[in-house]
Amino acid sequence: MKKYGITLLFLLLILSGHAQIRYYDGGQFPLIGKISDTTETRYERLPSWLKGICREPVWDLGKNTSGLALRFRTNSTTIAAKWEVLANSYMNHMAATGIKGLDLYAWTNGKWQFVNVGRPSGKNNQQTIISNMLPEEREYLLYLPLYDGVVSLQIGIDSTAIIGKPLLQFPSTTNPIVCYGTSITQGGCATRPGMSYTNILERKLNREVINLGFSGNGQLDYEIAELMGRRTDAGLYVLDFIPNVTLEQVLDKTVTFVNRLRQNNPKTPILLVESILFPHSVFDVQMYKTVTGKNNALRKEYEKLLQMGYKNIYYLPAGKLIGTDGETTVDGIHLTDLGFTRFADELQKTAQKILGK
Amino acid sequence: MKKYGITLLFLLLILSGHAQIRYYDGGQFPLIGKISDTTETRYERLPSWLKGICREPVWDLGKNTSGLALRFRTNSTTIAAKWEVLANSYMNHMAATGIKGLDLYAWTNGKWQFVNVGRPSGKNNQQTIISNMLPEEREYLLYLPLYDGVVSLQIGIDSTAIIGKPLLQFPSTTNPIVCYGTSITQGGCATRPGMSYTNILERKLNREVINLGFSGNGQLDYEIAELMGRRTDAGLYVLDFIPNVTLEQVLDKTVTFVNRLRQNNPKTPILLVESILFPHSVFDVQMYKTVTGKNNALRKEYEKLLQMGYKNIYYLPAGKLIGTDGETTVDGIHLTDLGFTRFADELQKTAQKILGK
Repeated sequence: MKKYGITLLFLLLILSGHAQIRYYDGGQFPLIGKISDTTETRYERLPSWLKGICREPVWDLGKNTSGLALRFRTNSTTIAAKWEVLANSYMNHMAATGIKGLDLYAWTNGKWQFVNVGRPSGKNNQQTIISNMLPEEREYLLYLPLYDGVVSLQIGIDSTAIIGKPLLQFPSTTNPIVCYGTSITQGGCATRPGMSYTNILERKLNREVINLGFSGNGQLDYEIAELMGRRTDAGLYVLDFIPNVTLEQVLDKTVTFVNRLRQNNPKTPILLVESILFPHSVFDVQMYKTVTGKNNALRKEYEKLLQMGYKNIYYLPAGKLIGTDGETTVDGIHLTDLGFTRFADELQKTAQKILGK
Repeated sequence: MKKYGITLLFLLLILSGHAQIRYYDGGQFPLIGKISDTTETRYERLPSWLKGICREPVWDLGKNTSGLALRFRTNSTTIAAKWEVLANSYMNHMAATGIKGLDLYAWTNGKWQFVNVGRPSGKNNQQTIISNMLPEEREYLLYLPLYDGVVSLQIGIDSTAIIGKPLLQFPSTTNPIVCYGTSITQGGCATRPGMSYTNILERKLNREVINLGFSGNGQLDYEIAELMGRRTDAGLYVLDFIPNVTLEQVLDKTVTFVNRLRQNNPKTPILLVESILFPHSVFDVQMYKTVTGKNNALRKEYEKLLQMGYKNIYYLPAGKLIGTDGETTVDGIHLTDLGFTRFADELQKTAQKILGK
């Protein structure tokens, strides 16, 4: 009877076909979005030489996987994932899917098309991302959490399907765009990883965009400039730090930060980005004064750099970055998917102008 | 010494001026967005005659305050709130600010302008929403949680400021728009209450929009049609239930549901809305088949109604509801602020065409 039961079970498993999921370790697939190799773990943003050198909060935030993405191809009809997050973070103004979920895109009709999200349930997660697909081979891009780390990651496919490294070198890893900044740069508060502005930009340009956004800590740390400057293949540096610095820091540190980037990269374009005009500053007059004061200071630093003879320095004013309807943030500061979409659109236009030169 | 200390404390309190917040019970300010008076509590959507008559999940979801908003005016420089939520709900694909936060708008330059959000910390919440405003009298609109209930609510202002009932009857409560539907209608997954499509529409048209979205339960319950039909002052009924019904239910229940609305409202326009084409259905062929099948069935019911001689029945196809870039949802189904903005834009155009007639 027992033997018969086991045979029946096997038959059922075979008949159920792709209902069986087989998992493959993410380590065998290329990872994009890293500024440098890392050694403590694969899924982090900062190399270990910075440990103990950069400020501790910056190091800790480097463990958040914002901007990192796995590339693979498969003909599976179902794609699932198992992933363990590092801190199992919670924030009351950002969906857990954005904080610690996964976000899958496929290369379809000449663009990166949203497939679906891996919704997190806690520290250890197992989730079907998409099912009922036609068994066609596709190239996939799987974004990792924006505000948590990844301890381990496995990709699940039909047991009868194949999975492998990508054939297309998309997004192009030649001359990546390197973005430095704040919580907004890191992706707060996108509903899912794919909707941070650096990840949207990556898809739109089909070019690797490296995220060096450090929530609350985009404070012009020179160690990070040093790290960024070592990437002599960078196509563009985007500096979007204003919300995290004081007026004094703008005046004290901007030129030195730019100098660090320039040491090894005399011609790489550098784009200085003003802080968005926080929608609630329509009412909060103190906030309005602070933000516009820092933006004005940045513009003066920019003009100073030009006067000093620096070339290929560009400036993106707050003007149209998030539109003017006031509806683009969750809390007056952090962008929603609506805000990030508008921000990425404006940044894309500017980047294309610069890169087209 | 003790007496001296107390005097000093008083002096400090006076000097600190508006840092002192005084709270006023929300019960004294008008509440908009309700289909009917309620008796169990002020902050709920369904009247008690439905208790035990409608299905239990519908009754329970009626306790969620989606679409409800307080109206008041004040000249305070700070606005704060204390609120207790009913269930302290959590969802892994929606920010807590949307689930159980508050969302403040002010009438400014002829439109409702976002002020800021009340971020929830748990069941009992106390939060400064905005500060550092000029002490000008403004009219405010405070949206209540989308996916939780409100047990109590107090509004805090500077102890020296005034607060009172609104002088402007905005949004107009004459001929409100009544929207019936699903989790999407209820506001899943807006980042904050103001970004559900019914609340966006309310601000854009400056007309009261009543939310009868019931997550997972927009199943054409006739008791809800009865409730909606009793509002003979309704300017427009919007029926957006397709994602929650089966193909069979579309065929079985649509005409009867419309009939219930028509009993007391022979001429009130009724708008049938197709299900959005879920972005992940580009890949999930089963989902694509299901959704388009139900949409096609709805169109046939619509044509049947026209053939039966019904007037003022309108139809909104899925076509442009959320655009075609696939980026508008958090999970393939539930809209983000980006999706809701596009959906509300399309619905606004359609509603204005209908209401302009």
